[in-house]
Amino acid sequence: MKVSIIGATGYAGAELMRLLLNHPDAEVVHVTSESHTNVPVSDVYPHLKGIYDQKLESLSDIKRIGADSDFIFIGLPAGHAMEIGRTLADMPTRIIDLGADYRFHDTAVYEEWYKVPHTHKDAERVYGLAELNRSKIKNAKIIGNAGCYTTASILALAPLVKEHLVDVHTIVIDAKSGVSGAGRSAKLPNHFPELYDNFKAYGVATHRHTPEIEQALTDIGGEKVLLNFTPHLVPMSRGILSTCYAQLREGVDEAAVTKAYHTMYDDEYFIRLRGLGAYPETKYVRGSNFCDIGWHIDNRTRRVIVLSAIDNLVKGAAGQAVQNFNIACGLDEKTGLALAPVYP
Amino acid sequence: MKVSIIGATGYAGAELMRLLLNHPDAEVVHVTSESHTNVPVSDVYPHLKGIYDQKLESLSDIKRIGADSDFIFIGLPAGHAMEIGRTLADMPTRIIDLGADYRFHDTAVYEEWYKVPHTHKDAERVYGLAELNRSKIKNAKIIGNAGCYTTASILALAPLVKEHLVDVHTIVIDAKSGVSGAGRSAKLPNHFPELYDNFKAYGVATHRHTPEIEQALTDIGGEKVLLNFTPHLVPMSRGILSTCYAQLREGVDEAAVTKAYHTMYDDEYFIRLRGLGAYPETKYVRGSNFCDIGWHIDNRTRRVIVLSAIDNLVKGAAGQAVQNFNIACGLDEKTGLALAPVYP
Amino acid sequence: MKVSIIGATGYAGAELMRLLLNHPDAEVVHVTSESHTNVPVSDVYPHLKGIYDQKLESLSDIKRIGADSDFIFIGLPAGHAMEIGRTLADMPTRIIDLGADYRFHDTAVYEEWYKVPHTHKDAERVYGLAELNRSKIKNAKIIGNAGCYTTASILALAPLVKEHLVDVHTIVIDAKSGVSGAGRSAKLPNHFPELYDNFKAYGVATHRHTPEIEQALTDIGGEKVLLNFTPHLVPMSRGILSTCYAQLREGVDEAAVTKAYHTMYDDEYFIRLRGLGAYPETKYVRGSNFCDIGWHIDNRTRRVIVLSAIDNLVKGAAGQAVQNFNIACGLDEKTGLALAPVYP
Amino acid sequence: MKVSIIGATGYAGAELMRLLLNHPDAEVVHVTSESHTNVPVSDVYPHLKGIYDQKLESLSDIKRIGADSDFIFIGLPAGHAMEIGRTLADMPTRIIDLGADYRFHDTAVYEEWYKVPHTHKDAERVYGLAELNRSKIKNAKIIGNAGCYTTASILALAPLVKEHLVDVHTIVIDAKSGVSGAGRSAKLPNHFPELYDNFKAYGVATHRHTPEIEQALTDIGGEKVLLNFTPHLVPMSRGILSTCYAQLREGVDEAAVTKAYHTMYDDEYFIRLRGLGAYPETKYVRGSNFCDIGWHIDNRTRRVIVLSAIDNLVKGAAGQAVQNFNIACGLDEKTGLALAPVYP
Repeated sequence: MKVSIIGATGYAGAELMRLLLNHPDAEVVHVTSESHTNVPVSDVYPHLKGIYDQKLESLSDIKRIGADSDFIFIGLPAGHAMEIGRTLADMPTRIIDLGADYRFHDTAVYEEWYKVPHTHKDAERVYGLAELNRSKIKNAKIIGNAGCYTTASILALAPLVKEHLVDVHTIVIDAKSGVSGAGRSAKLPNHFPELYDNFKAYGVATHRHTPEIEQALTDIGGEKVLLNFTPHLVPMSRGILSTCYAQLREGVDEAAVTKAYHTMYDDEYFIRLRGLGAYPETKYVRGSNFCDIGWHIDNRTRRVIVLSAIDNLVKGAAGQAVQNFNIACGLDEKTGLALAPVYP
Repeated sequence: MKVSIIGATGYAGAELMRLLLNHPDAEVVHVTSESHTNVPVSDVYPHLKGIYDQKLESLSDIKRIGADSDFIFIGLPAGHAMEIGRTLADMPTRIIDLGADYRFHDTAVYEEWYKVPHTHKDAERVYGLAELNRSKIKNAKIIGNAGCYTTASILALAPLVKEHLVDVHTIVIDAKSGVSGAGRSAKLPNHFPELYDNFKAYGVATHRHTPEIEQALTDIGGEKVLLNFTPHLVPMSRGILSTCYAQLREGVDEAAVTKAYHTMYDDEYFIRLRGLGAYPETKYVRGSNFCDIGWHIDNRTRRVIVLSAIDNLVKGAAGQAVQNFNIACGLDEKTGLALAPVYP
Repeated sequence: MKVSIIGATGYAGAELMRLLLNHPDAEVVHVTSESHTNVPVSDVYPHLKGIYDQKLESLSDIKRIGADSDFIFIGLPAGHAMEIGRTLADMPTRIIDLGADYRFHDTAVYEEWYKVPHTHKDAERVYGLAELNRSKIKNAKIIGNAGCYTTASILALAPLVKEHLVDVHTIVIDAKSGVSGAGRSAKLPNHFPELYDNFKAYGVATHRHTPEIEQALTDIGGEKVLLNFTPHLVPMSRGILSTCYAQLREGVDEAAVTKAYHTMYDDEYFIRLRGLGAYPETKYVRGSNFCDIGWHIDNRTRRVIVLSAIDNLVKGAAGQAVQNFNIACGLDEKTGLALAPVYP
Repeated sequence: MKVSIIGATGYAGAELMRLLLNHPDAEVVHVTSESHTNVPVSDVYPHLKGIYDQKLESLSDIKRIGADSDFIFIGLPAGHAMEIGRTLADMPTRIIDLGADYRFHDTAVYEEWYKVPHTHKDAERVYGLAELNRSKIKNAKIIGNAGCYTTASILALAPLVKEHLVDVHTIVIDAKSGVSGAGRSAKLPNHFPELYDNFKAYGVATHRHTPEIEQALTDIGGEKVLLNFTPHLVPMSRGILSTCYAQLREGVDEAAVTKAYHTMYDDEYFIRLRGLGAYPETKYVRGSNFCDIGWHIDNRTRRVIVLSAIDNLVKGAAGQAVQNFNIACGLDEKTGLALAPVYP
């Protein structure tokens, strides 16, 4: 399959190139960047020297790029992917958008949280979280790849919500991410001396991943979910740990909780159940497409606490995109993704 | 005043030495260590060379040390301070214990969580969190210095609980600490390559600071509090950020929440109210005795989210001990503690 | 080919498992550990869960392990590999030792620096640095895989020494390594809070990689080399940067230096010449088998300064071992090693 | 004494504020910033909230600021301090410039390396490195505070050069600094994810601190010194380690080297001689004005290797400025600087 990467100079774009290098069935035909047009990729990302030395193109001629590609991966700020989606609507090219433009059923929710008018409301689109939506992804024209925090959070809570084991009005998600999640543009808050040996929260009650998590959990449980999601910045490059809290319904015990996880995930290669009482660590998944999950029950407060860890650039972005690509192509889902985590 | 430090080679002991160097009214007369007896402090902590070159002694002769000292600071594992407290019970020496032995009203709670029998149950003791307990600290024989996570968490929630603005059954505290909180003994989980570029939780539903926070909040609000407290390890040396969640009572609005913080803390030098919508960062308080607090209200879920930051070795240990010492001596509370944070 | 890993629970052993997972022609049949016998690998290294869950064995039955294996990789402290080498001397099993036992022509040098008597002095052995020794590696029974600092340093200086462009008596190598190079055993100096936000040198004039570098450069240039090698510890997990200084011989200019690098390395896939005036960074090679090299000439002092970067666990250990394995098997040298660096 | 800080929003300016807070004889009367005029300092540096809330002014009215101040500290990019120096030439205000404008005897050297025309060539100025120049600093009108790398490097080598123990043509300085040395402006190379878990050199053979070190060593030894100086960026906030190499003159032994250090530095409070075979660490001096020095002799190569550690923002900038200020005021040199390092 011929694939192109639109917005290749963001961290997710670079990670896509890393992963696709080892994919036997994908050939990268175009890579684009508006800020570095005509420059070899390896000038912008010197770690790719000798591997990707091809020149970055502009997306101005997106129709030609689309015509050359079976799939395009898009890694652009909110509002841009939908323009491309509309432009390529009548072409056979399929789209995997790593941004948020195609993640919402209800584009009004998107517009409210992203402050951008949606211009492709009638797009046939599928929410790209393989473990929940595999069958729909198979034939989708447009896949709205799930976000990083959302992937970790939804996968952590899905079994509990699906089996109605928790009161969905009591969900609190306290999530922590490495700084690569903030992108590659240099700004004072992400200047090395400011963040190093430092820890902080941001986006309390306002982060855009909130409605995405709520949408997925509402879908799964059939009950409208509103929750608190609080992101934090960890002084490290990669990795997300999501700590999720919810009140157990009456009568729910450890066995029921544990069973829900096994029922839902035992056949999922990329989900590693660490079990009751376990502590996933972000380094255990670094560089890989795994999502590790452990759960705890506090009998004093009757709360369940779920911990999930992913690499935000892999299972939270580029790896998930390749997983969706594999499903959409009818390939083994692990193709190009059977990588061991990089430790230590 | 003559002071001695028992267990001087832990990180809190070293930090006490740093702070007391600049204290005009304290002279360090004895420093002890069982593992490094007869060795100069500056061999164990080379950063103190030229500053503290005196030899570490054994605490075997604690009576003599006590006789030489107006105050002793104790930084020992659970179970040891109470032995010293008993031994010095009839001497005028006053004690500030940086451990947990003297923190609990009900020693049964201590025994349950610390798995150590309490041998000094009738000790006259005061919980050493200055902002809550100033008047009792003044004349206390034994001060049970508040813990690190607990200081950050209690100070964050106290105004809300005091003014009955939140449902105390809904409190969740998600806290994150630098690794110095785990002490100085070398173990695989704290080996540099294991923790670096890594993030994880630990002690879910079992961490010993849980009952200490519950005790303080129960005292403040007059209603029995049970809550969830989850500690995490941040790949950095110092600093705690505590993210606290609670459901607002009906009718409580932003103004009421903000007022509660100002009413309780406007006269507190070491508490810096960052305000509604603010984000404290651990680096803003590094090396200082400040506790910075910001609060957020989510009208969608009717939750308040409070963020507090301290340096775990200062306001969470040695600085708090010096603050308590100042109060107990009738000195200005800021003596020796008017240090600007070390940034960046 | 069937391969076994002796001493699989060190960091180099874990990295070998990561790399061999993607090797189409190698099957890992035994993994050993004396400290964790009978425990699944993934209990010792949770990041390998679902990938390597086989049990660790003791090496006490090394003959059986040898009989089962075409190749064994050894990652043990100095003095142990030579025992295995002797035991398997008459079996067809081939050995790649990641330690130092088989690196020296003159075992007296080994004994002087490693303080261990050499018990396998007559072993037919080859120094395992592919770019220098490819043809001999092909048929070797025992390959003494080059060390981490040494690989970075030798590759940086080899072209200059080979073409006699520098005065070999003036060589100074100032090298910096991530902490994984110090191994996995927990000791105070490598305790997280001690090293974090800290930088230091160690082993000045005494580090064991010194004679290994001297041996290789002496071989290359035909002139006895004595040099200074100073290692430093960088507060990061992986990566080595080697900064090498030497006085240029009279008449040597930039063009001659640049030509020497291209002549020697233009056909080497794993060596990426960054060129004159370039700055390799350790992150550009992280997780990969590349060695990046840049060089600078100071006309004021007539010195050449060469910078080289490798991942100490890949090109400095496990990756190099796989590269040697590929050569020894007659496979394409890149097999299993065509991995893009993990960035950022 | 009334002091003002010109360019207060750089890291050195912030550090000056931290140190002056504890100085009993200095009152900060003006702080300036062209980019944040009229904004409270604590908005730009939230760690200073409650400590320095005064407003930043423009330096446009520098004459008035000068008239209000006994001393002004200047922390501005190259070329700006000399303008201020000229403007205040006839006023009694004394100047401590933390930049390079007043560091060079020969302004042609400044112009060559800094690419800025010098407009105050006849200024009476003194090189502000207290340990070398104390008597001249006492009455200086303008003090050109020594640079960060240079302070570490000169102090490390001065005794050897002074006593003619080394061949000055063989000096190589390999230095490593935390990222705060690069200043506070956000640029891609210093973006957190780019530098974290990464190590690199920069400015090989071209760094501006080279001629400053050469000037000082030439002064001390009376022999023209040309040397190599190579800076590196360590993924940490603060601290410099300088590793210095030189060939010993014939007949020079360990005793002579050790004696040179003691002769020169035994009475210096801020220099801590760690001794022969010792390893200074940057964390041992963090937050303090100390310079720690250790030295090693390699009898095989006849080289001496000297290691020195400072905090680049203290002894390398703001602390040195306060030390110079104390000397210039006739105060005890330690006033406001008797701070223990912040460890861990």
